[in-house]
Amino acid sequence: MRIALLGGTGDIGEGLALRWAFHSDHEVIIGSRDPDRARAKADEYETELVSRGRDRRINGFVNSMAADRADVVVLSVPAHYVTDTVEAVRDKIGEAILVSPAVGMKRDEAGLHYNPPPAGSVTAYAAEAAPSDVPVIGAFHNLSADRLANLDVELDLDTLLVGDDDDAKATVKLLAQAIDGIRPLDAGGIANAPEVESLTPLVINIARHNPGMHDVGVQFK
Amino acid sequence: MRIALLGGTGDIGEGLALRWAFHSDHEVIIGSRDPDRARAKADEYETELVSRGRDRRINGFVNSMAADRADVVVLSVPAHYVTDTVEAVRDKIGEAILVSPAVGMKRDEAGLHYNPPPAGSVTAYAAEAAPSDVPVIGAFHNLSADRLANLDVELDLDTLLVGDDDDAKATVKLLAQAIDGIRPLDAGGIANAPEVESLTPLVINIARHNPGMHDVGVQFK
Repeated sequence: MRIALLGGTGDIGEGLALRWAFHSDHEVIIGSRDPDRARAKADEYETELVSRGRDRRINGFVNSMAADRADVVVLSVPAHYVTDTVEAVRDKIGEAILVSPAVGMKRDEAGLHYNPPPAGSVTAYAAEAAPSDVPVIGAFHNLSADRLANLDVELDLDTLLVGDDDDAKATVKLLAQAIDGIRPLDAGGIANAPEVESLTPLVINIARHNPGMHDVGVQFK
Repeated sequence: MRIALLGGTGDIGEGLALRWAFHSDHEVIIGSRDPDRARAKADEYETELVSRGRDRRINGFVNSMAADRADVVVLSVPAHYVTDTVEAVRDKIGEAILVSPAVGMKRDEAGLHYNPPPAGSVTAYAAEAAPSDVPVIGAFHNLSADRLANLDVELDLDTLLVGDDDDAKATVKLLAQAIDGIRPLDAGGIANAPEVESLTPLVINIARHNPGMHDVGVQFK
């Protein structure tokens, strides 16, 4: 499959790009608002992969070109850029699946708190912004970007999928399984996204309060 | 320590009572609004423990008597009974620590959703109801009652603690560690309780949507 990572120059985008390029043969495209930056980061990821014996071509484009003819478009941008990013690629999404890994959080002296947009979750917000016939799947929220991006680290973690289109969810499940050490679990429909997205501030708070825990992820059992 | 489980005749109360009585030497007291029911369930728990070679005395009383002289009082009641239960034992709490494992949830056709009281979380709601000098710790939210109550099952799960009193949190941490297979993790202050309590509907939704997963718990790593 052809996977476009919009905002693929950022932390979570970098981690997913490296993992898919390293562990699978899916085509990985980096998108950014700035095409030069997209190309520079794509080159950087290629160099990292070559250093590990994996000679892969990764292209970088402006977001709309990255989304063009992609099978899956990942909105790996901060929550407050989700609408603008969808707007920028609206005419290019075609029959792609949109994937939303972003979470709305606020920070105060007590730590991080879940702070969803009025739609109820970032996944629902992305679904509102997307063309009505484009399926939106929430996924990859609770994976530490640093842990993903460090290919020396075994993941051994779960990621939770939410979405209202079963076929699209099955496709994203396959993409998640393509990364060694990630087990996708179905957490229900988009209406169940708030509880999934709430895990992200939780794991960051756990890392803050428990000595020796860093880049915390989760497993269900 | 002397642990009073108010609502200790219910699912989560039963699981915690059996585990503390089985794995530790802490004194376990069952509280209920109905003292006869408290005594009947306490007898039932004793029988279960004796059948496993553990001869323990478990007493059952009306909630206010159960709370009297307890070191730790667990509000193992549904979220909407928390205020009434605290009121019923207010004069007996003394210097005890209050523990809140309850979660507000609502169910619709999409599954379960986190539905906190206006205080922001059940833990905050319990803290509002408690005398101002009584520390309140949120804990034991995300442990399946059935898994706890089945002493044949190894737990190997995490529980998350939230609270604003570090000494009280340390005490509840020790109580959690007294149960084999439970690892307590610090998730911050009461302001961080919503993300902890949100895990309960999440694990129930995961059990619903993933074949072979039942009584789902969580581990952070």
